[in-house]
Amino acid sequence: MKVRLSIMCALMVFTSSNAMASSAVAIPEGMGPLPEKVDVPANNSMSAAKIELGKQLYFDPALSKSGNISCNSCHNLGSWGVDNQMRSIGHQWQRGGRNAPTSFNAAFWSAQFWDGRAPLLEDQAKGPPMNPVEMADDDADMLVARLQQAGYGPLFDKVFGKKGLNFDNMAKAIAAFERILLTPNAPFDKFARGEGDISPAAKRGMEKVAEIGCTSCHSGPLFTNNTYQQFNYGVDAGRKEVTGNDGDDHYFRVQSWRNVAMTAPYFHDGAVESLDEAVRIMAKAQLDVTLSKAEIADIVAFLKTLTGEVPSVTYPVFPRPAGKALDFRD
Amino acid sequence: MKVRLSIMCALMVFTSSNAMASSAVAIPEGMGPLPEKVDVPANNSMSAAKIELGKQLYFDPALSKSGNISCNSCHNLGSWGVDNQMRSIGHQWQRGGRNAPTSFNAAFWSAQFWDGRAPLLEDQAKGPPMNPVEMADDDADMLVARLQQAGYGPLFDKVFGKKGLNFDNMAKAIAAFERILLTPNAPFDKFARGEGDISPAAKRGMEKVAEIGCTSCHSGPLFTNNTYQQFNYGVDAGRKEVTGNDGDDHYFRVQSWRNVAMTAPYFHDGAVESLDEAVRIMAKAQLDVTLSKAEIADIVAFLKTLTGEVPSVTYPVFPRPAGKALDFRD
Repeated sequence: MKVRLSIMCALMVFTSSNAMASSAVAIPEGMGPLPEKVDVPANNSMSAAKIELGKQLYFDPALSKSGNISCNSCHNLGSWGVDNQMRSIGHQWQRGGRNAPTSFNAAFWSAQFWDGRAPLLEDQAKGPPMNPVEMADDDADMLVARLQQAGYGPLFDKVFGKKGLNFDNMAKAIAAFERILLTPNAPFDKFARGEGDISPAAKRGMEKVAEIGCTSCHSGPLFTNNTYQQFNYGVDAGRKEVTGNDGDDHYFRVQSWRNVAMTAPYFHDGAVESLDEAVRIMAKAQLDVTLSKAEIADIVAFLKTLTGEVPSVTYPVFPRPAGKALDFRD
Repeated sequence: MKVRLSIMCALMVFTSSNAMASSAVAIPEGMGPLPEKVDVPANNSMSAAKIELGKQLYFDPALSKSGNISCNSCHNLGSWGVDNQMRSIGHQWQRGGRNAPTSFNAAFWSAQFWDGRAPLLEDQAKGPPMNPVEMADDDADMLVARLQQAGYGPLFDKVFGKKGLNFDNMAKAIAAFERILLTPNAPFDKFARGEGDISPAAKRGMEKVAEIGCTSCHSGPLFTNNTYQQFNYGVDAGRKEVTGNDGDDHYFRVQSWRNVAMTAPYFHDGAVESLDEAVRIMAKAQLDVTLSKAEIADIVAFLKTLTGEVPSVTYPVFPRPAGKALDFRD
């Protein structure tokens, strides 16, 4: 329906040469611009104060035991929500188990982490602080005590009411901030709305991914159907580690193509350095299609049109106690 | 002169109760609001594009060999230009040799680093990338190659002209950005301008620091006379390590009091956790004055009035090559 609408729009504004170009190639079924709104859980309504608090927490390394690691360390908003590392560097320079997924548009996924072990952003935000190879807090009490010491108490009270500073509310505030981390207006989105064009190579790539079946999983405006699919690559058991079911062996959440050109390196192990190679491997592994170099180049040209606009974020000032050091530990 | 002017202003607006309060206590000779402008070297004029590029470089961990450490890691603009660490965490989780000084107002200092080994911000900015316990780049060529790979070339060309990407220009851009990192409008500044009041305790502290002689070094609107002074504390030889002169043993650059309440822990070794204790130690070591608890509390109340307003900084988006990983190394 969305597709038909956007094509109609393109026809309606036929005096625009861009729109004319857009209408020359049909957009495959299901594809469309990034949705404008995300679902918000009933128990975590959005407010400006909550988003601001969530932003402070997102950027504040005081969430980590060492005081050295923030959410933004691995999900850097300056580099499309990732750290461009194969596997992220955490507490004591330990490496994480999987490549850091982007925080941009994460509000749209049906579950978080490569294995989907966190249903909501609120659940995800509790993971890294407690992970011994990431922020390495001993427990939630330690983290809450440090946030209290840092002066976050009054800010939580303002948002969540009296004695509002706790682990759940920390996660809620971060999740609220993450729900504004959307990247609309990618070249493809403008093309789909009849407001701009994409290159002939990108159009060939767009048709190719539909033709060979990539879009049976990387479907819809998010370019993921938000399901788990088997990917027989590497040694990581994926979702089986969560469910314990052999049937989930090597299953991973289908990743979105949104901003994929900007989030190298690729796959859950981050071992693939180029998007060309990632496309080649996926087509062979999942669809048994051997793509030519020209076809790969076309598909990559299309994927590059899915790089959106990063929202403007004013860097926050963290609360800190005047004249006192915080209790950071190695 | 500035002092006399601000008192005159206070008298002129005598209908304001705040201004009346301001005029009740004379501001000690030399103290005054933070200067509005900084000196800019003739060979590094300011421009909006240069400041923007400097901001990208300041926040971008791609300046480090590992891709994990940015200027902002240790000089975090969310925590008043410091990391609140005793000694900063660098490459491979190594600790730096001294407590990280703040980048806020650093444009006003006569030299950079605790030992003054860098005359200008342009010199300072070249230090951390090459320091093996900080960003750990092997050499300037390695760093420049990575910035080229990341896509900084066209941004440098725009600011510095053709083939503008080099180590010197990287430092120039960062320095230009740092020259806007000023924190005006501290409560003391407003008081000095007759626009606001400070507490009776802070006023007593203000008079006490002048009376006992703290302000013979922590003088002027910056609360530092920008000289080197001997501080017989700890094992660090300070400026002697730069000059090789025994006469410089245990000499350090006089630190500014601007935002000092927000930059715990204290001293070049970062071993002192509270501002109270730092004040007590300094008065005894430098002036042979044993302060009472009440006097220390007054002085700390005054120092807290020197916390200024952090400038609004929009978090940058870094250039990155589409579909390609960067060459980060351990």
